[in-house]
Amino acid sequence: MPRTALDTEPETPMRRFLLATTLALLAGTAAAEEGMWTFDNFPIAAANETLGTEIDQAWLDRVRLASVRLGGASGGLVSGEGLIFTNEHVVARCVEDLSTPQQNYVETGFTPASREGERRCPGMTAEVLTDIADVTARMQAAGTGLEGEAFTRARDAEAGRIESEACGDDASRRCQVVTLYRGGQFRLYTYRRYRDVRLAFAPEHRASAFGGDLDNFSFPRFAIDGAFVRIYEDDRPVATPAHFRWNPAPPRADQPVFLSGSPGATQRLLTQAQLATVADVMLPLEQLLNSELRGRLIQYGLQGPEQAFQAQGPLSSIENTYKRGYGRQQALIDARFMAARETAEAEFRRRVAADAALAAEIGDPWANLAALQPEVRRLYPAYYLLETRAGGGSQLFSWARDLVRGAEERARPSAERLPEYGDARLPQVEQRLFAERPTYPAVDEIQLAWWLSKTREILTVDDPRSRTLLGEESPEALARRLATGTRLGDPAVRRALWEGGLEAVRASDDPLIRFLLAIQPPTREARGAYEGRVQAPTDRATEALARARFAAFGTSLYPDATGTLRLTYGRVRGWTHEGRTVPHATTFDGLWDRATGAPPFDLAPRLAAARERIPADTVLNVAASTDTIGGSSGSPAVNAAGEIIGANFDSTVLTQRNAYGYDPNVNRSVLVTAAAVTAALRHAYGMDHLLAELGVSRDGRRTR
Amino acid sequence: MPRTALDTEPETPMRRFLLATTLALLAGTAAAEEGMWTFDNFPIAAANETLGTEIDQAWLDRVRLASVRLGGASGGLVSGEGLIFTNEHVVARCVEDLSTPQQNYVETGFTPASREGERRCPGMTAEVLTDIADVTARMQAAGTGLEGEAFTRARDAEAGRIESEACGDDASRRCQVVTLYRGGQFRLYTYRRYRDVRLAFAPEHRASAFGGDLDNFSFPRFAIDGAFVRIYEDDRPVATPAHFRWNPAPPRADQPVFLSGSPGATQRLLTQAQLATVADVMLPLEQLLNSELRGRLIQYGLQGPEQAFQAQGPLSSIENTYKRGYGRQQALIDARFMAARETAEAEFRRRVAADAALAAEIGDPWANLAALQPEVRRLYPAYYLLETRAGGGSQLFSWARDLVRGAEERARPSAERLPEYGDARLPQVEQRLFAERPTYPAVDEIQLAWWLSKTREILTVDDPRSRTLLGEESPEALARRLATGTRLGDPAVRRALWEGGLEAVRASDDPLIRFLLAIQPPTREARGAYEGRVQAPTDRATEALARARFAAFGTSLYPDATGTLRLTYGRVRGWTHEGRTVPHATTFDGLWDRATGAPPFDLAPRLAAARERIPADTVLNVAASTDTIGGSSGSPAVNAAGEIIGANFDSTVLTQRNAYGYDPNVNRSVLVTAAAVTAALRHAYGMDHLLAELGVSRDGRRTR
Repeated sequence: MPRTALDTEPETPMRRFLLATTLALLAGTAAAEEGMWTFDNFPIAAANETLGTEIDQAWLDRVRLASVRLGGASGGLVSGEGLIFTNEHVVARCVEDLSTPQQNYVETGFTPASREGERRCPGMTAEVLTDIADVTARMQAAGTGLEGEAFTRARDAEAGRIESEACGDDASRRCQVVTLYRGGQFRLYTYRRYRDVRLAFAPEHRASAFGGDLDNFSFPRFAIDGAFVRIYEDDRPVATPAHFRWNPAPPRADQPVFLSGSPGATQRLLTQAQLATVADVMLPLEQLLNSELRGRLIQYGLQGPEQAFQAQGPLSSIENTYKRGYGRQQALIDARFMAARETAEAEFRRRVAADAALAAEIGDPWANLAALQPEVRRLYPAYYLLETRAGGGSQLFSWARDLVRGAEERARPSAERLPEYGDARLPQVEQRLFAERPTYPAVDEIQLAWWLSKTREILTVDDPRSRTLLGEESPEALARRLATGTRLGDPAVRRALWEGGLEAVRASDDPLIRFLLAIQPPTREARGAYEGRVQAPTDRATEALARARFAAFGTSLYPDATGTLRLTYGRVRGWTHEGRTVPHATTFDGLWDRATGAPPFDLAPRLAAARERIPADTVLNVAASTDTIGGSSGSPAVNAAGEIIGANFDSTVLTQRNAYGYDPNVNRSVLVTAAAVTAALRHAYGMDHLLAELGVSRDGRRTR
Repeated sequence: MPRTALDTEPETPMRRFLLATTLALLAGTAAAEEGMWTFDNFPIAAANETLGTEIDQAWLDRVRLASVRLGGASGGLVSGEGLIFTNEHVVARCVEDLSTPQQNYVETGFTPASREGERRCPGMTAEVLTDIADVTARMQAAGTGLEGEAFTRARDAEAGRIESEACGDDASRRCQVVTLYRGGQFRLYTYRRYRDVRLAFAPEHRASAFGGDLDNFSFPRFAIDGAFVRIYEDDRPVATPAHFRWNPAPPRADQPVFLSGSPGATQRLLTQAQLATVADVMLPLEQLLNSELRGRLIQYGLQGPEQAFQAQGPLSSIENTYKRGYGRQQALIDARFMAARETAEAEFRRRVAADAALAAEIGDPWANLAALQPEVRRLYPAYYLLETRAGGGSQLFSWARDLVRGAEERARPSAERLPEYGDARLPQVEQRLFAERPTYPAVDEIQLAWWLSKTREILTVDDPRSRTLLGEESPEALARRLATGTRLGDPAVRRALWEGGLEAVRASDDPLIRFLLAIQPPTREARGAYEGRVQAPTDRATEALARARFAAFGTSLYPDATGTLRLTYGRVRGWTHEGRTVPHATTFDGLWDRATGAPPFDLAPRLAAARERIPADTVLNVAASTDTIGGSSGSPAVNAAGEIIGANFDSTVLTQRNAYGYDPNVNRSVLVTAAAVTAALRHAYGMDHLLAELGVSRDGRRTR
């Protein structure tokens, strides 16, 4: 629990430093090397001064156009022929989808001998940000005078209109209204969208995930977490004149580095009252429930190799979420960190109070948000269970929900729909629905049984919503009936139901479709209640906070991350914490040393076979002080010259606090180097055609 | 997270009431109906005044001598021939131990036609408290002038000496030095000890656990959680002239009720700083880890009926712990509850500060405890993982630890041993070790794999202790090797190793024995560090707090629960919370209504078959305002006349806060009535010989 320690702890240099920097940060201004900046408000001068670089607007434009959003992650174009460098873990689902127990690319790596062997990743899209337009005035006007659900609906409708007006039904573009500064600003982002993304290379999974969950979120690290995909149109590679030059030289300590990617979500602008709800209610609930699902998946995977193969993807995902949550929980009980945050809020409030006109204009959003928290705490569990976590991660459930809700929503005008089914968003829905990927109903059964039983447990068995979900069935029996009875694993069935619309959906006797139809009332109600009674008043208050922040601290502020393109800057560097100093880089030497042979510390066979050929001092992973969070995975790591020197793939457990505030002492991103990937491509995987495309000669030098 | 809401919340009647009563409580004095009182300091007058009863010292003595401690739970003697009434869940392990997949008493109930069919419960003991002596002066003197581990060791040694002097090696008695008021007082409790405890009756498990984990910790409730055991000596039932008269009349609303049992542990005397550590570190860690084990056991149980049978016991146990923890976590984020606790502490401190002599004598234990908390937080995870939770609940591991540590410790003089292996405690160790009970190595394997992997995860993979545990093996491989390779499932093997002592243990090639030998250094070190650097200074400070509490509030205080005999009083009554009113009792009618047929709401077959014979309005369970906690299970519910009218078996989720403070508005124990048990014995299970022994005629009247 966050608690103030300011009045009991001694003054130390570290403490002064932390307080000073975090204070600056938390009030909304950024310390050096802090911030996930939008490309239209990047602090060029400050970055150049801090790093000694000379980047300019043209540099920014080039980096932006070579940066790619890959679903919830990031990548960078690295050739003129649509080649994109990203992390293996970003394409892990694709590798699994293309694999069978007989031809298991997870085990062997995906290493086609030529471009002809590249294979399409089901459901994957790649997006390049081409335009940014300010739509703040339109969006704020849409909500004027409205409250509750009406406010949310009006805003959603306006966003849908803006997106439709800009993109129409052009499936090659994506238009997205982006909320910045928690409602302080709105932008229309337009992307060039590519829907044929093919896997070009992935190493053995054990090479990219060496150390497994234990080494996840840690450093020193020894993971070749790099992969390549390529974008196609009309069955031909897309010409991409804007791309990064590949630089396989090892990064040096203190070298400036920029990461250009799509960090998912931070909560730095939350008030202390809001953060207390995260600490008391949201994170504990999510962690406790996910921990049980983790146990179920682990035990299932122990039943045999087939089960282990099926469980691996969902298990990795949940372990990642769980460990991130664990790091965040540690931050929230760190008295020093939370005290700095509290002091920063007090300073912000002091500044606002000192400006009578400003104070009168914005009122007291802090008090409004504090008063709202009991309602948030009351409504969150049902919202989480019935809406955001519904289905427990089951792929079959997700498809069924898209089919049922999509059909119900498309029967209404676009502006009146749930926003994710507005006309401008339908191409993404279809991309998900029509993807040809394998399903493993036994895994869906576990996810559904877990979700049903936890929902009943938390809402209580006598809650009418529990009864709507389960009727007289047990969670286990219902989950089995749904997962084994549904035919939605067949893409043709999904396509027919989608194209058949509401009539086809209502006529379907598929048990999962029938189930989704039956649970629409309680799930939509839980969402409506949360959006109307929590989200809308929260948006109102945070909009006022955003205005106050601009007034009190000027406009050179960065917004919370929202899964859209950002640029962050810093240096390659290690750190010292609690007396332990960690150097900035690891080499292959360290990898060989760490391999015990027992999973997850067993070497990938092809990599192990290349041991003698890979120079032992090749730099494998490096740490950097850049400001990143989940979603930044695959972000191109760019040097001052605009060349790619690696990709972000992780951060440390101590860095997880950066959801709530940047701590310069311990914030470190973890990157895989272009040097390591080059060595692996050449010595372990024989990917000479990719090396040639990257402009790297046999001796590791650049050829262009 | 606990947080003060006093300055923002409006004054309401409920709030005033809560503050007033909780304030009284928390400073150490008790509100009406509050308190788990020792029998030598029971507030006879206050109880009589509150309840309108006329109990006296003779009444207390009779109740004490008819009350029985059953391991970590409670029971009451109900005949002159050693018959004890308790909960089915208290004997559930025994029922499992006596069952096989072919003859599964868990499913059928254990209903022998006569006394000759009663069967011994492996490892079970029954203890009746016969004497209480004050040993405060000796115990406090033993620690004088010592700090850290030396302090803990000296106290443990003195307790061992006191126990040995009093009981010698008389296995028919047990002597136990009990710490009260967190070190404010010490008592020597002497018990008459019975080591041959036989199962006399258990209903079908589905009758006693109807509603399963979902209905656990809830009310209205419909569980026939009653069972009988009998104590034997020399193969004959023990004569027990002191026993409760069985009263099968239904309890009425507001009827006075006393519970006499052995509540396990409360933490009401913790300071706010100590409680913050519970809230921030201890509970979250335990809940998160246990949640994963729960998932593993659930998934294992779904593999088939044999696995379900094996997993049931450990799963029930962990679900119970988990749900209790969930209720406690809810209390710790209840701003109102925590604010009252904070105010109470402030009032206590104010009183001490107002008495200059007292303040000078005790110093500032609150500050000392607050300053200690960073160390507690740092050391707790390793202590929990390597010591208190070591083995993950594996029965085989526990035996191995007793064998290895027992052998190492017995090589030293009694006073220098770990206290649990002092001479006076060895009979209990032997009772555990020599118990003939089945083992299911597949379950041990799950528990061990979970424990090993979580320990490595939390301590981190590079911690030397992780390496000592695992060597180069994976948790899964090591767990399998230990669980399948050990021969400790055979009681003869355990007995030979115990009797062979250190030499036999060191010569053993049993993999689990070798493993336990290998991990002694890090596990003993984790324990020593915690005891020396956390427990000893905590004991010092809380001893001062206890002195201050007696000085400030007088001596009519009750101590925190410690697993020893206590008496609590209250009334049979429902409650109103958040606008919902819950009546005081349920009947069989309600049970039939609630049965959906899907587990855990399916009726037990024999009970269902008796449906027409059991009067539908027979009172099944009642709620009472008595002050209970885990360990109170099976506590005889006694009326003003000293007759047994039921047994405590649970409380509500809202009651879980009573670990930290009694809340008269929501605190409710849940009892199974003698009325319901009588009906079940007669109509469902044909236990006429027991009914006769209880003095109940065929028409349900008492015959004596």
